[in-house]
Amino acid sequence: MTTSYAQAHSLENIEMLELYREAGFSGRVGWGKTPAVLVIDMAAAWTAPEEELGSNVEDVMDATVAVLTAARSKGLPVIFTTMAYDPAFIEAGPVTTAKTPHIKGMLRGSERVQLRPELERTEMEPLIEKPHASAFFGTNVLSMLVGQGVDTVIVVGVSTSGCIRSTCESAFNNNLHVIVPKEAVGDRSHTAHQAALLDIDARMADVESLENVIKHIENL
Amino acid sequence: MTTSYAQAHSLENIEMLELYREAGFSGRVGWGKTPAVLVIDMAAAWTAPEEELGSNVEDVMDATVAVLTAARSKGLPVIFTTMAYDPAFIEAGPVTTAKTPHIKGMLRGSERVQLRPELERTEMEPLIEKPHASAFFGTNVLSMLVGQGVDTVIVVGVSTSGCIRSTCESAFNNNLHVIVPKEAVGDRSHTAHQAALLDIDARMADVESLENVIKHIENL
Amino acid sequence: MTTSYAQAHSLENIEMLELYREAGFSGRVGWGKTPAVLVIDMAAAWTAPEEELGSNVEDVMDATVAVLTAARSKGLPVIFTTMAYDPAFIEAGPVTTAKTPHIKGMLRGSERVQLRPELERTEMEPLIEKPHASAFFGTNVLSMLVGQGVDTVIVVGVSTSGCIRSTCESAFNNNLHVIVPKEAVGDRSHTAHQAALLDIDARMADVESLENVIKHIENL
Amino acid sequence: MTTSYAQAHSLENIEMLELYREAGFSGRVGWGKTPAVLVIDMAAAWTAPEEELGSNVEDVMDATVAVLTAARSKGLPVIFTTMAYDPAFIEAGPVTTAKTPHIKGMLRGSERVQLRPELERTEMEPLIEKPHASAFFGTNVLSMLVGQGVDTVIVVGVSTSGCIRSTCESAFNNNLHVIVPKEAVGDRSHTAHQAALLDIDARMADVESLENVIKHIENL
Repeated sequence: MTTSYAQAHSLENIEMLELYREAGFSGRVGWGKTPAVLVIDMAAAWTAPEEELGSNVEDVMDATVAVLTAARSKGLPVIFTTMAYDPAFIEAGPVTTAKTPHIKGMLRGSERVQLRPELERTEMEPLIEKPHASAFFGTNVLSMLVGQGVDTVIVVGVSTSGCIRSTCESAFNNNLHVIVPKEAVGDRSHTAHQAALLDIDARMADVESLENVIKHIENL
Repeated sequence: MTTSYAQAHSLENIEMLELYREAGFSGRVGWGKTPAVLVIDMAAAWTAPEEELGSNVEDVMDATVAVLTAARSKGLPVIFTTMAYDPAFIEAGPVTTAKTPHIKGMLRGSERVQLRPELERTEMEPLIEKPHASAFFGTNVLSMLVGQGVDTVIVVGVSTSGCIRSTCESAFNNNLHVIVPKEAVGDRSHTAHQAALLDIDARMADVESLENVIKHIENL
Repeated sequence: MTTSYAQAHSLENIEMLELYREAGFSGRVGWGKTPAVLVIDMAAAWTAPEEELGSNVEDVMDATVAVLTAARSKGLPVIFTTMAYDPAFIEAGPVTTAKTPHIKGMLRGSERVQLRPELERTEMEPLIEKPHASAFFGTNVLSMLVGQGVDTVIVVGVSTSGCIRSTCESAFNNNLHVIVPKEAVGDRSHTAHQAALLDIDARMADVESLENVIKHIENL
Repeated sequence: MTTSYAQAHSLENIEMLELYREAGFSGRVGWGKTPAVLVIDMAAAWTAPEEELGSNVEDVMDATVAVLTAARSKGLPVIFTTMAYDPAFIEAGPVTTAKTPHIKGMLRGSERVQLRPELERTEMEPLIEKPHASAFFGTNVLSMLVGQGVDTVIVVGVSTSGCIRSTCESAFNNNLHVIVPKEAVGDRSHTAHQAALLDIDARMADVESLENVIKHIENL
């Protein structure tokens, strides 16, 4: 079921890919037995093109909804994240607000940090307000996954070069199998998206086509 | 400024205390330079005597408010915790709900998990919904403390044998100085309270009198 | 296969046990599907009666070896811990060395921190030098367990009121099923041992008889 | 004392840098008061050009030694890392060995994982065997830094796009100030090095010139 990243992907970074392979990266991990879906930051602040951080990610939204539809039909666990802070931004801290001042716009309760309605989140699907890029840092996500016997996470959402990459690394560090359906992740910058996908596939996750991911879920 | 636990405390566990001392426990750590206050679970579910888990902790509330008054007058950071879950209890997980079924009553948004109004929490004082006993597990509390340059935590609230003990242990593991003003922590069971205080003083924190803690803060 | 703690245990704390039950503690969690064994601090410093921290734990050693024999016959993962520091004790830190000065005797490489030979550790069984009481704090243990698909930990070794209790709490927080065979854990103080076992059973783990634990493993 | 990354750096990624700035990244954090040095993976496996993962990093070694000399003259804490595993690789886990098979060559005790002698590590400077890319994951590093009152980490060593980036992100998440002297970090691939430095400066750390970092330390 797994395809190599080179097959699934354009050839534009093929030279870098070879460099990674020769150095002993980019192995195939494959799927475990019990996947869950992590939907990262599919809220207005990141998905509206007119936003400072926003992107035109309607294709990513369509792909995410396709993954969710397949996952829900099989009863897989789903967890959503957003980023939201109180007005004092103590949860973020002075280092974070200095380096990435855009987070000052992510106020808890504001419309910008609400999940996009197309996701149709249900009460069974936790919504986590993560303080930093990784869904695992400063949250209870790992314990929730262990409690549900999850060994594989399918990571979707935005942005490929930021929160997607960080979430994949944390999951990988914790020895979870990590699957990234490439059409279901996006970034403001096409260049950053392509570079991050290559890096993610080399170090942390199996980057797969959306089609293969959906098929795998449907065959569970 | 530090008193020994034996001075500050009744003699009822003095034999056990000696045993700890001989084994190389119960040293004095003292205060660092920059304290913060952690107020643990001072919400209705734990502080109303008619509650399953509740105690008559009006004395603890008075002592907690005294600590808060002193801390706020010096501009010390304050963090509050409560425990709250969505109706599916996925944040808690099946192991937790099986072992401690009382948490099924801690619904996010319900009155039972709201902070007691006497605490007069301000917007500058984060409120954390911790999933387990320790304020540090599955939360961003450590990062918030590091971001504010905190090296000492004053731990107050309930219950001494549960969330207070666990929070002290996490803070100690992270090399924070931990101070417990003994009048500002409480437990349903007097026996469990006394045993836990002894254990906390032996292994993790300096248990002090409320008077000494207030004086120390006022002299900062 | 599970017995209640009241059945497995003496009646000396039965009143406290009832108090816990009424408050919504002491539920039965039971076993998951894939257990591992965590053997805590069965090294000379903790198991030699002439040591400051030591106990006469020959019965605990016999029970531990019985658990290991059963676990190895089924190919279950086994992880050992000890505590060991470089002479500067920076891994422990000033707070830890002030509160629990006995750790200054735990020098990396010294005989006192070596595992007892009766354990017959093999190369497939990691040995972790944990810096604090819990086997999970500041170590890679959780990631190792997730990587091996473990959902249940059987915790054995010393001391019941210290490292055993802390390790059980961490495992519980991470939604692992936790099983403590009561004959395979020990403490210098009989009182502390009994109180800690009651607390562990109420809040974190199913305390079981050694016989039942061995039977359960043999039936896997 | 801080220079902007644009000043310190070549112009080759200036367009990407502008994109980051407009999106609210790449703020200046500056130094805290109490820095420590983290020296990442300066061992044979990563620093010998003939190695699969190795680079010709003699310039990086010289810059690292210059940082160490300045730091030691001021008594700053220093922590070294390497990566090393037992032959069963259980500390790494099946996911890690599948994705990055090169780690199978990092045997505990082998010459390839020993620190380079030019570093002249002393007994006061802990050496951490980290299981994954970040110096903070599955280790006690954060607790050690908190215990020494550290609020700033200077991150040096290899590889910029891997362990340096991951370590910077963990430190940033924990609200530590992160400083990267650009001449003191290196990577097999010049392209990956440049892209990672840009990303690190945009999201996690202030990338500075070696000269400025040394001056700052000397003025402490």
